Amino acid sequence: MTNITIIGAGNMGQAIAGIAAAGGNSVQILTRDAEKSATVSAGTASGVIGDVITGDIVVLALPYGAVSLVLESYAGQLDGKVLVDLTNPVDFSTFDSLVVPADSSAAAEIAAAVPGASVLKAFNTNFAATLATGTVGREKTTVLIAGDDTDAKASLAAVVTAGGLKAVDAGSLKRARELEALGFVQLTLAAGEKTSWTSGFALAD
Amino acid sequence: MTNITIIGAGNMGQAIAGIAAAGGNSVQILTRDAEKSATVSAGTASGVIGDVITGDIVVLALPYGAVSLVLESYAGQLDGKVLVDLTNPVDFSTFDSLVVPADSSAAAEIAAAVPGASVLKAFNTNFAATLATGTVGREKTTVLIAGDDTDAKASLAAVVTAGGLKAVDAGSLKRARELEALGFVQLTLAAGEKTSWTSGFALAD
Repeated sequence: MTNITIIGAGNMGQAIAGIAAAGGNSVQILTRDAEKSATVSAGTASGVIGDVITGDIVVLALPYGAVSLVLESYAGQLDGKVLVDLTNPVDFSTFDSLVVPADSSAAAEIAAAVPGASVLKAFNTNFAATLATGTVGREKTTVLIAGDDTDAKASLAAVVTAGGLKAVDAGSLKRARELEALGFVQLTLAAGEKTSWTSGFALAD
Repeated sequence: MTNITIIGAGNMGQAIAGIAAAGGNSVQILTRDAEKSATVSAGTASGVIGDVITGDIVVLALPYGAVSLVLESYAGQLDGKVLVDLTNPVDFSTFDSLVVPADSSAAAEIAAAVPGASVLKAFNTNFAATLATGTVGREKTTVLIAGDDTDAKASLAAVVTAGGLKAVDAGSLKRARELEALGFVQLTLAAGEKTSWTSGFALAD
């Protein structure tokens, strides 16, 4: 059993909480709004952002723009944690570029902001519905995980597979740049109705 | 019927020739080596690089490093053509980055080199085997096409769909950067045996 904290209770946070709970892990969900946190699924502990983090794996289930304030509010408290970034840092005013530098990534920016944590990029290439159902089209949902800490990747992969999904090591944290590009393309394809919000890219065997 | 010229008769060139021929198009294949060109499938005209291009759509089925010399040898003769770039400009010495600038793409570099052509990015997210079989896992193979010329994209999409595959408009040529990132990730996953060379990413409906 792993202790997992999920910050954010939107579609992504709730879907990941479901995966973690299905695998028998201990789940804490922290939200900005105490009322929202009360709506999350049974079997999870809930609280508000600012509460003490109980998880060893901390999932930032937040829009990219909301991450920095949350990291500031937990300054010093994320050292030694596995910190999972699932953001797609799209410039939604144009939907034509990312807001991070071309040679960087949201994950790299987060890793620079929290050097004491083991930052992983994961879940950003999965639409929430495919995490909830466990399938993309006719394939099992695959969570691509990039990071520099092999043990951290293995611990997150174990949570994903215990929850019934497939986990794939996508390489070092440098690959977050490509995973964010993949997530961005997938968002544009769904917005353009070339795929659906319940589908997207499946990784076949 | 569309006249299509394919430059290169490797796995990708041969698979795309097969798609184009299956759709009833006229296909010309040009290779560096006259003997190799003679091995391509029946129903196609073959020749060597330097011969007059007969196609209105020209597919550069070449490694990125071989493109510039071919473009030079056809200087001025590609104006008005639809020029299809399928390269993944990976630095194969490190397998850890692309050789094009982070804020650019191989397709953008080719478009700058041949301003008179309508450059499209396509096929770079498809392994050759999935073009030949028409399937990725249990999904139909989808060819993602990016470019700034809507008519050019439609003409290539018509060839792809007539050949039995699915074509999806992936946006402007600027999206080539993300498609190349997707192609790069897919190559690393196949090299790491996380997916196979006959499989990869499928786009589900």
